[in-house]
Amino acid sequence: MNFLARQKKLRGQLAPAGLDGLLVSHLPNIRYLCGFTGSAGFLVVRETGSVFFTDVRYDTQSRAEVKGAKVMIARKAVLNALGEWVGGHQKRSKGRTLGIEAEHLTVAERKRLAGLLPTGLRLRSAPPLVERLRMVKESDELELIKAAVRLGATLFERALEVLRPGLKEAEVAAEMEYAARRAGAEEMSFPTIIASGARSALPHGRATDQAIAAGGFVVCDFGVILAGYCSDQTRTVWVGAKSEEACYAYQSVREAQQTAIAAVRPGTTVGEVDAAARKVLRKAGLGRYFTHSTGHGVGLEIHEAPKVAAGQTEILRPGMVITIEPGVYFPGKWGVRIEDMVAVTEDGCEVLTPTGKDFLAV
Amino acid sequence: MNFLARQKKLRGQLAPAGLDGLLVSHLPNIRYLCGFTGSAGFLVVRETGSVFFTDVRYDTQSRAEVKGAKVMIARKAVLNALGEWVGGHQKRSKGRTLGIEAEHLTVAERKRLAGLLPTGLRLRSAPPLVERLRMVKESDELELIKAAVRLGATLFERALEVLRPGLKEAEVAAEMEYAARRAGAEEMSFPTIIASGARSALPHGRATDQAIAAGGFVVCDFGVILAGYCSDQTRTVWVGAKSEEACYAYQSVREAQQTAIAAVRPGTTVGEVDAAARKVLRKAGLGRYFTHSTGHGVGLEIHEAPKVAAGQTEILRPGMVITIEPGVYFPGKWGVRIEDMVAVTEDGCEVLTPTGKDFLAV
Repeated sequence: MNFLARQKKLRGQLAPAGLDGLLVSHLPNIRYLCGFTGSAGFLVVRETGSVFFTDVRYDTQSRAEVKGAKVMIARKAVLNALGEWVGGHQKRSKGRTLGIEAEHLTVAERKRLAGLLPTGLRLRSAPPLVERLRMVKESDELELIKAAVRLGATLFERALEVLRPGLKEAEVAAEMEYAARRAGAEEMSFPTIIASGARSALPHGRATDQAIAAGGFVVCDFGVILAGYCSDQTRTVWVGAKSEEACYAYQSVREAQQTAIAAVRPGTTVGEVDAAARKVLRKAGLGRYFTHSTGHGVGLEIHEAPKVAAGQTEILRPGMVITIEPGVYFPGKWGVRIEDMVAVTEDGCEVLTPTGKDFLAV
Repeated sequence: MNFLARQKKLRGQLAPAGLDGLLVSHLPNIRYLCGFTGSAGFLVVRETGSVFFTDVRYDTQSRAEVKGAKVMIARKAVLNALGEWVGGHQKRSKGRTLGIEAEHLTVAERKRLAGLLPTGLRLRSAPPLVERLRMVKESDELELIKAAVRLGATLFERALEVLRPGLKEAEVAAEMEYAARRAGAEEMSFPTIIASGARSALPHGRATDQAIAAGGFVVCDFGVILAGYCSDQTRTVWVGAKSEEACYAYQSVREAQQTAIAAVRPGTTVGEVDAAARKVLRKAGLGRYFTHSTGHGVGLEIHEAPKVAAGQTEILRPGMVITIEPGVYFPGKWGVRIEDMVAVTEDGCEVLTPTGKDFLAV
């Protein structure tokens, strides 16, 4: 990863945003800019250079990982060390403005920081500059994402090997997660969803001790983290003898998903992609059962910009990676969701998820 | 869990804190007060009652889980629904004060909220009222924590079965995590640390693809979540032929850990417990290699109040659950840490972690 190039891009956006520097506090943004993978730290990016602050637990690790920034190890609170350093190194603080990541910095951190900085230095909520950079993936990021997606997809094959009536949802998740680890995944990108029976109508039905019953859908929504990058995939399978109603719901969701994927190309807004999926389900008489948005960006975080939702105006650009995941949910009965990850290309998109989407009954 | 009793306790603390209500935004606090286990929501607790706001994804789930609060499902942004509701239901907002959780609410959320609330209603950073309630565990919480600790401890037995030179750190973690899931754990309470060779000198050395080499320590730091409650445990084993130096470091850490545990009793401050561990290592000539704090509270979160660290003045009370985890780290060489969870009792403490602490060489 070319951390220096990323920092340079960010530096170029400071002055236009009216900032003399940016205090980066969101850990995925810190990782993106300087490579630090630990759980505590702050990065200050200014025209004259970058400084990374962390605590003694990350002394060795930060010196090995951090690129393009001076590393400062705080003996006490990291924010205090940062405040002291800025006070000592900002010769002419009067009238200077330090941007903060308002969507991530807490009210208490902001207050503490304000009390530590030299008078005259203002704090200002910055636009999501780093998130915007991260939204368009570089080619080496795309390779890492593809590797994560490929590994993630093998978990569904494992699920199909074990899935049968009577098995607990959590046992299916256990087999998938074990396979992920053995294949090299660092961790799951979110708590594995194995939602069977009426629980399949919960869009976020994490695997429980419930035994899988015949005569219903099982929603499998899962992902891994590999080399820092996330995968995200959903497949829904039927257990037992098929019903016409279940097939209709499944095929409608599948058509909505494929139609939305077909709409993904540079210049289209994410809102239009969402509308494409929604239109198919509305025509099928299922519009009101599609209760969530169509998708989201994926990268260092499982949910990142852009949101693929109604009314969102972000314009798709080559290198963006998003999920397309319409679903329908009948509370108390069952639900269906199908999700792929796609990368926006120069003239359309590439579906990254290799798994088939035919109606499967086990 | 008696959610109503918890909310009642919290209500009794609103007026003394100068608050007419508290906006609870930290998810573990929300779970503690009303039982909601999802990933998005806000709870408003006022003298006249509580209202929980979430989005459509959690419609069915929140209605099933939430106790002691009216459930409101937002069709758009949850914070907007909350703002509108407060505006409509706070008849006399002038001079009223709504507390916010400043350590958790972001700067952007606070700003958005301020723009949505009726004029005259002030927002004020509240003290950590819910965290203070959570610090002292109820008897049914203690039972759940003990069950999590017991399950967690079995993972070390699994690690010992597989640990041998040549195996990758991540393969050890995979076996432990698989055993955890199969035993009913919902997930790991943090990324499993299996740190071998020079990586054992990293206090936060997550399991990697590095093969375990003979002639060094392996730090195993791991925990599970069971019924919402976390476990946290560390054991360090030696691989290969023992050295006198390694035995000395191990026994010194063990003595520091036991001395700190012996200091845990009601009335003692957490700072005194930290000092007890530190004194032993200083006397052993290893004080400067003990670079982190002695421990932390554990419950619904893996790290919660109190901090068991130098200078901290929180006084131990029966029902508190903390870790005692001194360690020494020689950068580039190796490290040792031993960690148990202990519950403060009426006249001392109960060590919850059942695993032995003799020097083990595999």
